[in-house]
Amino acid sequence: MPPGREEASERVLQILSEAARLFAANGYERTSMRDIAAACGISKALLYHHFVDKDAIHNRITLGFTRELYGFVAEQIPAEGSASCRVRAFMTASATFFERYRQVWMTSTAAFWSDPKARGQEERIAWRTRYEMLLRGLLAEGKASGELRDVDVANAGRLILSALNWMHRWYQPGHGQTAVEIAETYHDMIFGGLLAGQAAPKLSQSPAKRASGRP
Amino acid sequence: MPPGREEASERVLQILSEAARLFAANGYERTSMRDIAAACGISKALLYHHFVDKDAIHNRITLGFTRELYGFVAEQIPAEGSASCRVRAFMTASATFFERYRQVWMTSTAAFWSDPKARGQEERIAWRTRYEMLLRGLLAEGKASGELRDVDVANAGRLILSALNWMHRWYQPGHGQTAVEIAETYHDMIFGGLLAGQAAPKLSQSPAKRASGRP
Repeated sequence: MPPGREEASERVLQILSEAARLFAANGYERTSMRDIAAACGISKALLYHHFVDKDAIHNRITLGFTRELYGFVAEQIPAEGSASCRVRAFMTASATFFERYRQVWMTSTAAFWSDPKARGQEERIAWRTRYEMLLRGLLAEGKASGELRDVDVANAGRLILSALNWMHRWYQPGHGQTAVEIAETYHDMIFGGLLAGQAAPKLSQSPAKRASGRP
Repeated sequence: MPPGREEASERVLQILSEAARLFAANGYERTSMRDIAAACGISKALLYHHFVDKDAIHNRITLGFTRELYGFVAEQIPAEGSASCRVRAFMTASATFFERYRQVWMTSTAAFWSDPKARGQEERIAWRTRYEMLLRGLLAEGKASGELRDVDVANAGRLILSALNWMHRWYQPGHGQTAVEIAETYHDMIFGGLLAGQAAPKLSQSPAKRASGRP
């Protein structure tokens, strides 16, 4: 278990998810601690046991989930294997996280970009940077080993993150492909290229360890 | 000149750009018609000649630019050439538009997603759809001719649009690559693939006609 994950109990994740859903639907101001407790099916006392106030919940949504995302994704990447395979694990783990905590992700992303001076933004950016550097590290290894072309690692990383980040704008859970399937499709297109007559991407290595809890 | 472009005089584009900048910096409510006129260096009378009120400016920002984007990009795509070459023109034209009207684009995108029921959204979505279908059409032609692999056109289109759309989140004008250069890099990675040992993307055909006004 990576550092920091021990606090992320299922209860806390449930509270954050429900609160994010309510903030998104009704706005922060019009959402009360009572509403959040009711949505979780727990008492206000139990809710206050986990969070001192609504602001603390909001901060955790805007800050904590970047840390959560990093930890969740980092632990899904196999220690061995091709860069293609390991980046695939990065992408499918990100998609799994996104799919599981969709509301939190959306609220969190909106809050992140709309209020760059908010408390905790520095820490959030630091976790976001670690997440991005994790991906660039995998790409740089693949380039060094000759597996990947001599592409600019920063741009390649941004391309991959753009695809993952933009997904929440159009993806509808329960319709068509799952987020993980879309991430796999993106991976195959980005690694194999769209042009015909190229080597098929080498995807025969051990597939990324999937996060449990998804079919 | 594509339909609708005749209204987009330089003056109107200046007003929209300055207004978008002020809305983004100070908020819609705290921006007055006087502020917008001052930012443009024009009289309030001239401003009112172009727009009846602030709401009209805001509507044009959130609605009109999708139409502008479509028209601008559509006219940059060469009638002949490979799918790779034509998609490259789609991407660089989008990047040029984005770079030139960055503030408008950002304000417009934020407004678009934050208020799905706003007046004009249906029309905006229709233009956005035409823009996306233009890209899918180019990809489908490339697939039909055998130039492109048998990829899912909708997903390939989304991958390309994600890269373009997400650019405004991290791109800083005047620092490093231009938006057009980034779009070209993305194109080469997406078409050629990241994996080594593949055919280099065929980019020798006539380059996309660039929009003038950028070095």
